[in-house]
Amino acid sequence: MIRIPGVQLPLWLRSSFASSRSPSARPWQPQAFVTRHFHRPAYLREQGSPAKLPSFLEAYKKAVEFPPATHDFESFLTQAEPNADVVLHGYLGQRADLSKKLSFVRLIDPTMKYSLQVVSFAKNEAFEKLKTINANSPVAVRGTVQQKKKKASEAAGKPEDSWELALEDIHLLNDFPKDIIMTPETVFAPEQRYLQLRSDAELREALRFRAEVRNACKKELEESNQPGFVEIETPLLFKSTPEGAREFLVPTRRPGLAYALPQSPQQYKQILMASGLPRYYQFARCFRDEDLRADRQPEFTQLDLEMSFATGDDVMRTVEGVIRRLWSTLMKDPAPEGPFRRVSYQDVMSKYGSDKPDTRFGMEIMRLDHVLPVDLVMKISPLTDPIVEAFKLESADNDPAETLKFITEFLDSPAGASFNNNADGGPGVFVFNGKRPLSGLQPFGFEAAELALVHPSRVARRQLAIFAGLYTPMPSQLASRIPPTGFDFMWVVDFPLFSPSSESEPGQGGAAGFSSTHHPFTAPKTAADVELLLTDPMKVVADHYDLVVNGVELGGGSRRIHDAAVQEFIFRDILRMPAERLHDFSHLLDALRAGCPPHAGLALGFDRLVAVMLGKESVRDVIAFPKTGKGGDDAMVRAPSPMTEAALQTYHLQLRKA
Amino acid sequence: MIRIPGVQLPLWLRSSFASSRSPSARPWQPQAFVTRHFHRPAYLREQGSPAKLPSFLEAYKKAVEFPPATHDFESFLTQAEPNADVVLHGYLGQRADLSKKLSFVRLIDPTMKYSLQVVSFAKNEAFEKLKTINANSPVAVRGTVQQKKKKASEAAGKPEDSWELALEDIHLLNDFPKDIIMTPETVFAPEQRYLQLRSDAELREALRFRAEVRNACKKELEESNQPGFVEIETPLLFKSTPEGAREFLVPTRRPGLAYALPQSPQQYKQILMASGLPRYYQFARCFRDEDLRADRQPEFTQLDLEMSFATGDDVMRTVEGVIRRLWSTLMKDPAPEGPFRRVSYQDVMSKYGSDKPDTRFGMEIMRLDHVLPVDLVMKISPLTDPIVEAFKLESADNDPAETLKFITEFLDSPAGASFNNNADGGPGVFVFNGKRPLSGLQPFGFEAAELALVHPSRVARRQLAIFAGLYTPMPSQLASRIPPTGFDFMWVVDFPLFSPSSESEPGQGGAAGFSSTHHPFTAPKTAADVELLLTDPMKVVADHYDLVVNGVELGGGSRRIHDAAVQEFIFRDILRMPAERLHDFSHLLDALRAGCPPHAGLALGFDRLVAVMLGKESVRDVIAFPKTGKGGDDAMVRAPSPMTEAALQTYHLQLRKA
Repeated sequence: MIRIPGVQLPLWLRSSFASSRSPSARPWQPQAFVTRHFHRPAYLREQGSPAKLPSFLEAYKKAVEFPPATHDFESFLTQAEPNADVVLHGYLGQRADLSKKLSFVRLIDPTMKYSLQVVSFAKNEAFEKLKTINANSPVAVRGTVQQKKKKASEAAGKPEDSWELALEDIHLLNDFPKDIIMTPETVFAPEQRYLQLRSDAELREALRFRAEVRNACKKELEESNQPGFVEIETPLLFKSTPEGAREFLVPTRRPGLAYALPQSPQQYKQILMASGLPRYYQFARCFRDEDLRADRQPEFTQLDLEMSFATGDDVMRTVEGVIRRLWSTLMKDPAPEGPFRRVSYQDVMSKYGSDKPDTRFGMEIMRLDHVLPVDLVMKISPLTDPIVEAFKLESADNDPAETLKFITEFLDSPAGASFNNNADGGPGVFVFNGKRPLSGLQPFGFEAAELALVHPSRVARRQLAIFAGLYTPMPSQLASRIPPTGFDFMWVVDFPLFSPSSESEPGQGGAAGFSSTHHPFTAPKTAADVELLLTDPMKVVADHYDLVVNGVELGGGSRRIHDAAVQEFIFRDILRMPAERLHDFSHLLDALRAGCPPHAGLALGFDRLVAVMLGKESVRDVIAFPKTGKGGDDAMVRAPSPMTEAALQTYHLQLRKA
Repeated sequence: MIRIPGVQLPLWLRSSFASSRSPSARPWQPQAFVTRHFHRPAYLREQGSPAKLPSFLEAYKKAVEFPPATHDFESFLTQAEPNADVVLHGYLGQRADLSKKLSFVRLIDPTMKYSLQVVSFAKNEAFEKLKTINANSPVAVRGTVQQKKKKASEAAGKPEDSWELALEDIHLLNDFPKDIIMTPETVFAPEQRYLQLRSDAELREALRFRAEVRNACKKELEESNQPGFVEIETPLLFKSTPEGAREFLVPTRRPGLAYALPQSPQQYKQILMASGLPRYYQFARCFRDEDLRADRQPEFTQLDLEMSFATGDDVMRTVEGVIRRLWSTLMKDPAPEGPFRRVSYQDVMSKYGSDKPDTRFGMEIMRLDHVLPVDLVMKISPLTDPIVEAFKLESADNDPAETLKFITEFLDSPAGASFNNNADGGPGVFVFNGKRPLSGLQPFGFEAAELALVHPSRVARRQLAIFAGLYTPMPSQLASRIPPTGFDFMWVVDFPLFSPSSESEPGQGGAAGFSSTHHPFTAPKTAADVELLLTDPMKVVADHYDLVVNGVELGGGSRRIHDAAVQEFIFRDILRMPAERLHDFSHLLDALRAGCPPHAGLALGFDRLVAVMLGKESVRDVIAFPKTGKGGDDAMVRAPSPMTEAALQTYHLQLRKA
């Protein structure tokens, strides 16, 4: 036996090819070769000698060798000439048999954007063949181009209406089963996402649009900035450094050791800034292991960017450029001009009760307790001397009864429960009605009614309903009653650097009782804020900025702490991180220490951005294969799936007994 | 207490801001608010009242408020005017003190591509300040532009040589510590990757080049194809369907269930083809849990693409277009013209002994046993009537003694061991020497010597050494002796659809004794091959194609089986997959069943492609933060890291006892 080190396949196999395939091959002498046995398929054992092919293999033989297209559809539509002999690929539409000798069918192109009429005459063989093929089946069609006869009523329309094909031959490529019902309106279960994509032109268009949004962002960052941004990939096999949400682990074959999937490229991008790459961006896949409430996904895409020798202002200006390019190249609405307005965190909380207000609807909160009659206040709330706030809601209706009905229905619905369940008093609803005293606001008393009616607000003068007594962000159900009035962008700035810890977040592992509002790498905004670090950290304002549009937070960012000593001080002395957590960040501190320049950055939720641009309620409508359900299921492929005993063993793990 | 549902922060915090920050804020009445206590930092408790800032915070105050640049460097170099007052950002170079009153220093721009001379005169305050700042520190420099005095010997060089700045002020942004020694030649340990990036211009350039390669691929796929390719993202939280290499698992909080990280987007891209998106591509992150031999990474990037209504030929043509654009826009070498040559698997194995031969060096294997003298064969091998093969190696030397020395050293080295350790006979080495009888090949005998000398080969006529008796791929050490001669692209095609199973691969879970050469979704090439599925599967040729250049496999692909019945037949009847494994693929079968068109695709190792273009030995030189070591370590962030007990508990796991 000749042992042949380094050879990819055993020599015996090569020799079998040599002898069977190529008559000119040298005459191999395999006396010294290893012989191998392999399992002979059962169907061969039973049959002994080659039998007739089963029908599915016969059909497949025909599908494997199919005629190439002479044109792609789009080129065909512009280059078609009468009497030309062409082959086109596509999907068969519904067939219409006009008579025993004439059938029509549409051929839909592979992008499903165009279709072409195909005429089938009984004189051609293909006539009967066509009748055996189900609609929606992929086919190759050969035919002769002819001018399409237009009805008098048809205008000179699209190119696909000018031509038709006289069918010469049709070649079935696969069979679309009759038992699948597929219409543009069908909503398929997540298990059949492929059918949803197949039938839902809007979903496919959303994915194409997403790719265009990506390209526009890229173009802006690379070409309209000096120096240009460079797209750099960062690792996904990262390590566990909990910064907010819980992270997915990736066990390794080294007992007890695991990677973690990153929530963001935060630390790597900061290290790039320390490394002499002054402008970084990435469409980064990010992960968080949280329950999927409120339209979240366990993995999502961020447009992630960072700039060195930069402040928050520089980042905001760059991002405004991106938004402007997106709107001017891809949207019907005009591009927002000039810098977006900036509203401080404090103002936005006091005016709207939310750090991501939908400012299109006005909806500014006004305080009324100081002007409302005491008897009204006693009706609204059991508290002594409570704060009473109100906001105004515009409605398109001019019908007070209709408006009241709508609001009542809303309050009765699950979404309205939070209003009703306020132990300190349910909402009072007052509907504007020009025919009534004080326009329906008589219970307010004169002073409050006047205040409410003239309160500055961006909505039209016709205020139709006022909720009083409750302080809560604008429910989206109410918002949807009102036709959107464009895209109102704003930066929410001047967040506090620290906030009291909330139990719902795994937190940053500190013992201080408070945590960083954004994350612990966020820098204080001014020299005065730096001083406050030492004396009154809760008053420190951060150079932290969120981009909000129409009540949706698109993303946010901050200037980072670029000084290792200050970063360590904040970790250790302010957030009171335990030593082992501090050690987790030593790579970042080392990089900062090596003369890292000041830097700032931002991340936009890219799925969210595309959904907002398209007016989609859910990011699932702009993701090809989204997860669904509370547990993050991919129902189509059935993930997550049970870990096998072999896999657990490989990773030195076992299931914990409950 | 007023409970405020939906509010992001407790009201008490907002009120504290209202009272402290904005005198015009409404007078809040916090009687009903919750008060919160938080831990007062230790340094405050000890000091009682605000004390003087520690020096690091004083320094940071100055760094937080730094003057913005008036120009970015590149714009400055083209727009500079004498006497203009500018502020530039960058890194300080080494300072040279010419006298007690005059210092020079270079300011290096943030991209580290340019530098500018800065002159510091004692009359300015900044003179002494400059002396306190270490080289490599990030700074903001304010100065007056002046024409740089050129030496007579200097030509009119780059714009950065025309100007210099007279230093007015310098603002330190962070300190580069003196204890870090950083030169362009320093090779830093993986722990200090940020310093490697900081000091190694070639590495930074590689990352910029990588981004340009990405853009060129994108442009070609989107703009030079009709219909254009659409960039679509596919999930990374996938499920375990072992197709070759071991997959990383991602446990979930649902006991026993896990996602898996994908080896490739294979199944999702096929499903996209079934979904009416005819041209897909993605720069996809792929993962495999293998030992990192031979320059592999546990996560890597593939340029992944798929086309519907397509065959292998269509894919190869598309990829040739991508390569052509890359070479013509980014490389010095001319773009390869026309279609790349295609060599069948069988031919490439018999000629080169490898399915990824480096064809630049000729090195075709010739058989000599039928013409060698019997006594020579007996000297080479203990076998009776063995096969004897030889290949020729060209050397740049014209010195037989030097060549023999080189080859002897090679054979003595570990790389040469495989030659020496062939139990069936070590290599014979014959060095061409024009001065000797039969040019040194006398032991061959006349017939073999003539055959060897004239054997067609792509190397020059001067053959200097011949290895006889062994059949093995060209060792790279030998290859490196020969100056590279450009990029020789080829497609290796016509692989067998199935190969005998090798124990080193986890395999595809079949009981057949053989497995798919590429993967089980690969289609047979012709109708004749379809017939062979039933009678002699080992003879079936696949529509499978690998792209090879200079001995490196850049990637490969195949036409896929688009017919569900055939795919299932191959899974179940040929590969003998157990039922539960078959069930793993039911989503794919369902999608194929729904009238999926024929489709084909390919994936290129994108890291590998960039490394080959730049002539880098290792993909680590084209990845920002690569893993190192056999176990896939990120030494800089220290991943993988120990799983905490809390984390294990969260995922219902525990470590298995050995």
